[in-house]
Amino acid sequence: MSAPQVRDVPIGLQATGTRTEGDSLGEVEVPAEHYWGAQTQRSLIHFDIGDDRMPKAVYHAYGYIKKAAAIVNARAGRLPQWKADLISRVADEVIRGELDGEFPLYVWQTGSGTQSNMNVNEVISNRAIQLVGGRLGSKDPIHPNDHVNMGQSSNDTFITAMHVAAVEAIDDHVLPAAARLREATEAKSREWEHVVKIGRTHLEDATPLTVGQEWSGYAAQLGDAIDHLQRTRTGLYQLAIGGTAVGTGLNAPPGFGEEMAKQITELTGRPFTGAPNKFAAQASCDHLVRVSAALRALAVPLFKFANDLRWLGSGPRTGLHELILPSNEPGSSIMPGKVNPTQAEATLMVAIQVMGNDAAVSMAGAEGNFELNAFRPVIIKNVLHSAHILADMMDHFRRFLIEGAKLNADRLHHNIDHSIMMVTALSPVIGYDQAAHIAHYALDKGLALKDAALQCGIAEDTYDKIVNPERLTRPGVPTPDGDTRR
Amino acid sequence: MSAPQVRDVPIGLQATGTRTEGDSLGEVEVPAEHYWGAQTQRSLIHFDIGDDRMPKAVYHAYGYIKKAAAIVNARAGRLPQWKADLISRVADEVIRGELDGEFPLYVWQTGSGTQSNMNVNEVISNRAIQLVGGRLGSKDPIHPNDHVNMGQSSNDTFITAMHVAAVEAIDDHVLPAAARLREATEAKSREWEHVVKIGRTHLEDATPLTVGQEWSGYAAQLGDAIDHLQRTRTGLYQLAIGGTAVGTGLNAPPGFGEEMAKQITELTGRPFTGAPNKFAAQASCDHLVRVSAALRALAVPLFKFANDLRWLGSGPRTGLHELILPSNEPGSSIMPGKVNPTQAEATLMVAIQVMGNDAAVSMAGAEGNFELNAFRPVIIKNVLHSAHILADMMDHFRRFLIEGAKLNADRLHHNIDHSIMMVTALSPVIGYDQAAHIAHYALDKGLALKDAALQCGIAEDTYDKIVNPERLTRPGVPTPDGDTRR
Amino acid sequence: MSAPQVRDVPIGLQATGTRTEGDSLGEVEVPAEHYWGAQTQRSLIHFDIGDDRMPKAVYHAYGYIKKAAAIVNARAGRLPQWKADLISRVADEVIRGELDGEFPLYVWQTGSGTQSNMNVNEVISNRAIQLVGGRLGSKDPIHPNDHVNMGQSSNDTFITAMHVAAVEAIDDHVLPAAARLREATEAKSREWEHVVKIGRTHLEDATPLTVGQEWSGYAAQLGDAIDHLQRTRTGLYQLAIGGTAVGTGLNAPPGFGEEMAKQITELTGRPFTGAPNKFAAQASCDHLVRVSAALRALAVPLFKFANDLRWLGSGPRTGLHELILPSNEPGSSIMPGKVNPTQAEATLMVAIQVMGNDAAVSMAGAEGNFELNAFRPVIIKNVLHSAHILADMMDHFRRFLIEGAKLNADRLHHNIDHSIMMVTALSPVIGYDQAAHIAHYALDKGLALKDAALQCGIAEDTYDKIVNPERLTRPGVPTPDGDTRR
Amino acid sequence: MSAPQVRDVPIGLQATGTRTEGDSLGEVEVPAEHYWGAQTQRSLIHFDIGDDRMPKAVYHAYGYIKKAAAIVNARAGRLPQWKADLISRVADEVIRGELDGEFPLYVWQTGSGTQSNMNVNEVISNRAIQLVGGRLGSKDPIHPNDHVNMGQSSNDTFITAMHVAAVEAIDDHVLPAAARLREATEAKSREWEHVVKIGRTHLEDATPLTVGQEWSGYAAQLGDAIDHLQRTRTGLYQLAIGGTAVGTGLNAPPGFGEEMAKQITELTGRPFTGAPNKFAAQASCDHLVRVSAALRALAVPLFKFANDLRWLGSGPRTGLHELILPSNEPGSSIMPGKVNPTQAEATLMVAIQVMGNDAAVSMAGAEGNFELNAFRPVIIKNVLHSAHILADMMDHFRRFLIEGAKLNADRLHHNIDHSIMMVTALSPVIGYDQAAHIAHYALDKGLALKDAALQCGIAEDTYDKIVNPERLTRPGVPTPDGDTRR
Repeated sequence: MSAPQVRDVPIGLQATGTRTEGDSLGEVEVPAEHYWGAQTQRSLIHFDIGDDRMPKAVYHAYGYIKKAAAIVNARAGRLPQWKADLISRVADEVIRGELDGEFPLYVWQTGSGTQSNMNVNEVISNRAIQLVGGRLGSKDPIHPNDHVNMGQSSNDTFITAMHVAAVEAIDDHVLPAAARLREATEAKSREWEHVVKIGRTHLEDATPLTVGQEWSGYAAQLGDAIDHLQRTRTGLYQLAIGGTAVGTGLNAPPGFGEEMAKQITELTGRPFTGAPNKFAAQASCDHLVRVSAALRALAVPLFKFANDLRWLGSGPRTGLHELILPSNEPGSSIMPGKVNPTQAEATLMVAIQVMGNDAAVSMAGAEGNFELNAFRPVIIKNVLHSAHILADMMDHFRRFLIEGAKLNADRLHHNIDHSIMMVTALSPVIGYDQAAHIAHYALDKGLALKDAALQCGIAEDTYDKIVNPERLTRPGVPTPDGDTRR
Repeated sequence: MSAPQVRDVPIGLQATGTRTEGDSLGEVEVPAEHYWGAQTQRSLIHFDIGDDRMPKAVYHAYGYIKKAAAIVNARAGRLPQWKADLISRVADEVIRGELDGEFPLYVWQTGSGTQSNMNVNEVISNRAIQLVGGRLGSKDPIHPNDHVNMGQSSNDTFITAMHVAAVEAIDDHVLPAAARLREATEAKSREWEHVVKIGRTHLEDATPLTVGQEWSGYAAQLGDAIDHLQRTRTGLYQLAIGGTAVGTGLNAPPGFGEEMAKQITELTGRPFTGAPNKFAAQASCDHLVRVSAALRALAVPLFKFANDLRWLGSGPRTGLHELILPSNEPGSSIMPGKVNPTQAEATLMVAIQVMGNDAAVSMAGAEGNFELNAFRPVIIKNVLHSAHILADMMDHFRRFLIEGAKLNADRLHHNIDHSIMMVTALSPVIGYDQAAHIAHYALDKGLALKDAALQCGIAEDTYDKIVNPERLTRPGVPTPDGDTRR
Repeated sequence: MSAPQVRDVPIGLQATGTRTEGDSLGEVEVPAEHYWGAQTQRSLIHFDIGDDRMPKAVYHAYGYIKKAAAIVNARAGRLPQWKADLISRVADEVIRGELDGEFPLYVWQTGSGTQSNMNVNEVISNRAIQLVGGRLGSKDPIHPNDHVNMGQSSNDTFITAMHVAAVEAIDDHVLPAAARLREATEAKSREWEHVVKIGRTHLEDATPLTVGQEWSGYAAQLGDAIDHLQRTRTGLYQLAIGGTAVGTGLNAPPGFGEEMAKQITELTGRPFTGAPNKFAAQASCDHLVRVSAALRALAVPLFKFANDLRWLGSGPRTGLHELILPSNEPGSSIMPGKVNPTQAEATLMVAIQVMGNDAAVSMAGAEGNFELNAFRPVIIKNVLHSAHILADMMDHFRRFLIEGAKLNADRLHHNIDHSIMMVTALSPVIGYDQAAHIAHYALDKGLALKDAALQCGIAEDTYDKIVNPERLTRPGVPTPDGDTRR
Repeated sequence: MSAPQVRDVPIGLQATGTRTEGDSLGEVEVPAEHYWGAQTQRSLIHFDIGDDRMPKAVYHAYGYIKKAAAIVNARAGRLPQWKADLISRVADEVIRGELDGEFPLYVWQTGSGTQSNMNVNEVISNRAIQLVGGRLGSKDPIHPNDHVNMGQSSNDTFITAMHVAAVEAIDDHVLPAAARLREATEAKSREWEHVVKIGRTHLEDATPLTVGQEWSGYAAQLGDAIDHLQRTRTGLYQLAIGGTAVGTGLNAPPGFGEEMAKQITELTGRPFTGAPNKFAAQASCDHLVRVSAALRALAVPLFKFANDLRWLGSGPRTGLHELILPSNEPGSSIMPGKVNPTQAEATLMVAIQVMGNDAAVSMAGAEGNFELNAFRPVIIKNVLHSAHILADMMDHFRRFLIEGAKLNADRLHHNIDHSIMMVTALSPVIGYDQAAHIAHYALDKGLALKDAALQCGIAEDTYDKIVNPERLTRPGVPTPDGDTRR
């Protein structure tokens, strides 16, 4: 068949009612206004379960795969160039999201993702047929299996699409949002570098540190989590493509996997390679299990960060209230004037959701059998969900809480003045036991630490020299007056 | 103010652009085509995180609450009757889902659900104002806080709405679907009551049972899970309403909680009561944590059921293939003619998701502080999600797998004929050690059990009398020929 | 064989070196000082994994089962009375824990628990042989399989032992400890019934309640969790015993299961019954999955309780410090005089462990296949572990924290005096918007609420009449001076 | 005080009854036969909860820390050399496990691990006092706080000990065992490189591969998991030591952390460094959360491996039985001759436990507050437990299952001969639709694939050329007769 003319038809079918489409199990009526075919329709009938749809990002990733396959197959002479061009053109529409409405399938479907792969194959087939003026459903001149799916199986492409989609979510959304949050946190750390505050361990008063030091810890936790996520997500660069049905690459030409990885790299600008072992690549979702855990490992320090801030901001009159959080919304339908740490609460809930999602991913990752892990949809749903809400949450937490947070200087000073844990500084000089005695004395008598120390026999100049809150935060570092502790 | 005339204005605002609304933090521009007010808009700005919206079921439940409150407040003379009627009328629109488009808020918001409560208050206020020809945003004559929220707080109403929504999801969807699945399973159990099959323990050949017995086990597991869910969800009948801000009932009249529960009972036809301790009812989500676990406890036997069936159906040539599952869809984009246990796979994934959701609920349930658990949205999202996908999945699993499943009689017979584990029946007669010897002998020599037994000195009539597969499945029960084993 | 004389030999074997024992796979050398046989020894060799041993409680439960079986079998004439008596006598030693040292097997073994069942069978066999002066390992006159295990399989007995052991742990330890904790909490609630404190929602200042009310919430949460655990654990009363290998009861006489349940009831004093469906009873661990969740549902409110208390106790100078926790230990190796909420921390950790354990139980519960759930050891290990640490922890938390907790009256008063959220009480009188204005005014100007209210035009006698902290905690309830709010 | 003479007293106290020891809260009676002091005793009284003891590995790691501190402090002139030598000597006893009996504390204790740190300090103090002939409990000449704990806090040392202990467990046990398992798996993969078998996807028959290819997948999964664990555990090399109470390093000299890390590196031979941010290092357990997930990421492929093998070994007569697993133990107390995949079952259970442990670690990791994560004991308990059982399990799984596994050649051939999924190879030649037709035809008629193909019009030589099982496993690779597919 020679190349037919490709017409510039906009996306959309002006038909109503149904159209007959067929597959190896027989004929099916599909809505005439949609491109999809028999297998998509069967899936819609058998799996309209809940509201969870296969994420669009998976289909966009599939666009790259189908386009790359067309190019590679044409280059090898397995597919006429004009068919490849036609497939590529429609694949670009898929990539750009212009055909999103044609991908209605649910997460709860076949465990391999075959139905979503066939959805893509069918839509590309029929859209291509439309572009050359053919008959929808005829599979001619572009057959969903023989041409769009050439050299591929759902078993290698779906996990490939999962990797591509997850990499994009992490690189385009999670990591940049995390970096912005870390930077904003570091900026606050620098801003408050010298503001002394009382430390707390076990929630109990402890020795002082600066607010900047405390926030440097939040930033460092985020930094470590970012590094780990970056390292871990490199596993996603390994693509199963080329393994076809069971990893042997049956029906794909030799080298197909590597060529595909190279082509996908070119199309996406990301450094994909062929998975070194296709059997492992298709029989497991291990890289995604690890990436899910790395997302959780970002949620964990976020939880702590948000939790600390809501406590530090608690009050305004009877809480810690060292921090003044932005007043974004009225906090109560009954208590007038109440303002709540809502961004922190949302962050805590998102972190919890990420942990729950990860529990599902972990179990699903373990359940594969033989040559296929058939729990892929639940895995990609949860990984992308975690990525999505984490990324958005970090941006909101930063914009609506971190950046507008202010210190309550009065409270910070008051706390420093009243704490007795600076007695610790005396310990190397007078011994732990005597220092403990002073502390208990202060507490029992309701005294300030200095008064207690003096009554217990410490000389005032010794006390003043040693118990200097600011210097206690940077032992060994020269303070403005040139003194160096120890 | 006397009662204004209520006009029969259809739902909808024909305005474009924005409208100024205000709250205690100031003024906000909201889209003019929507009823919601300042606090809803603030939440949309501060919390557009991911795609997870507060489930509509929560708002429908809120419809009942707002209507009940209007009725109760009017009855007590706290609210003019015409205001109550107006609120009730709009609440009915909320209940019927006609205002669903006015409830756009995200799950990731304030942990108390205040923003969703205010969303309801604002929408009812403005819709009521529209009905009497007032000025949107004027809060006159129906004020979102003073009238719609009269005697209420988010702290008592949101958890109340969670209970109502969860009860409805369980009673209207999960329990009926589970009952239908159990019945379909019992029907199969009866149908196959006398079909003998080889049992399997540790995946290894064991003594026989009937297919009906095996399926009676699935049905019994479901039955126990249903009973447990039913019992556990009775905790949801206890409503926090009446506790207002912190459980003391401040700003609600004495007895308000009980009256509200009675009124909600009347409106919903479900036996709600006031929670006996409002402090516990608002400070925790314990009833929902237990209900989430009870949903998980339904997912657990479903997982086993679906897992067994996909294994029993495996093949068609090299698997167990005792069961022939319906061919719903082509199974492979590359392997022609392949049919897969897709309903079973979807069921397994749904069960895993329910377990992941439950992990999130459990942690969120533990995290409350003082007079409020501020992790409510993540809890209700996950509970309703689990209920939704479980209910739908059970119906699909039943319709598209259970009801069409057929037995492979040839394979069942073949397995019975070849297994050697019926040697067990000889054990009480000849002793375990000698019986084990026969089994090993059969295995080593590749013999049928009978041949091995005879070669080891068992008399043929003894063997035949004892090793009768059908009788082994019902020891002690008379078989058709009048014999009773032991 | 007639009854041999039973000699009163104390427990213990005075041999050294090894003894040859055998099973169907051949001979094995076992340590001569132990009673166990070949199969126990094989398990020790193949499964010395980690330090987790099968809990002794499982063996004690097995003692009841073996004794009951001997009695029932003898009664039916299947076992000579003297053999039954001999087995019973040794079973009593097992029940009393006197043979604990003979049960060395690991949790990580066969998934059915067969090796632990055989361990019991072997030990009872050899100990009985010792008592009648026979030759150890001869299986004569008491054979581990033919006599001790008569009418039983691991498949029905092990899950039966799991149920019995779990019921005992819950009834003897968890429920009593929980009841004691609830009572101690209620006592505190009564003691502090009229002490007013500021409420907190979202960690932020809210309207007042009494300390007694707050603690009544903790008690109520515990009460609900206790009720749920009690109801849920009744499922454990259903015993699989009688189903033998695959649930059909092969090799057990008709009615054996019911008789056994009755006998075990008699021996233990607990209302056991035969499971109505043995196939479900052996193929699943569903009752234990639900019980694990019910233990978790007790851990959840415990987490909240302990978390609240450590925060309420935080300080002593810069935290909330409304509560004074007992000083049980020095809190720091470096900070002299520091005291920490260690019981609360341990409680939080125990609760987390229970949640982790439950996650394992849930997954293991889902994984059974066909006629057997072969993930039993990991389930019983985790359920008993959760029960054990929960019970102990509740007692310690009660004794070393709850009972010694004291209120910090000064701080409570100070907080009430300074909070502005009592403005809520004005709201029904002056409207939400005006009340919010007063609150913001107070906050911005740093005023006490009353001063702000008066400056905003509220009459002093109105203010005093409405904003009375004590009355705010019990709206509608007459206060000592005869006034009734509203 | 000049250096006293150190006497070579063996470990052990010959006293009975109790001895009075004291701390800042007063005096306590401790058992006279033990070295520990008042704080250890207080912890024993307040925390005898369950059976979980703080793992000994934590104390051995503490031995390194205390020795390193003594060396570093002496080098800086802060501690007399003889005191340092004395502490070092006892620390060596701790490291060698000779004082294990002196470390009785429970996991459920203070969340910082202070009590275990003080346990070490007290034991070293009293053992040192014994060595120089002093009075136990006198804290002279070696004071638990002032000397053994010099420059340290529990807050920096306990998390340091956690890191050291976890690294040792992973490097000495988990990684070597995993490497051995991977090697054994690769050996089997090589051994079976050319044995063709039918592939399975969705448990259903699929196209063939070789057993060696399948096992190469298992090995590759393990390899990836090993790499990830290795990379992730490098985070543990960063030590908090030097941060003391809240991360500022108060009471430690400048540079102390780096010197300590260097000294611990020297003592352990592992490349530790000072954590770059001590605030993060003490306020979180993030590195351990990630390591726990990496252990889980090893459990996940192990689960799949064990699960596949037990299914492949199922039978012997009615299962898949392509694999013959070693007969390690009799499998049933009632079914003579039964052999079960017990190592696989134990592996599955261990994997599940690791997932449950990880859920606990993740939640505990999120819960830290301000300058300290006070959930450390539950974290280290679970991480070390996971490491321990994983390492042991992998060795057992390898020795008692993998290494003795044999193929069932007959069954493999039979399956290849009967499967119809090799029709896939025809698809590129005759099209998917026609190929599907042949497959359904074969299935419906009960034909062998070849017969069906021929009846559907495929030429025999075409069929034979294309459908060659062995060649299908390595498309494009020359087979012995010189042919290259495609």
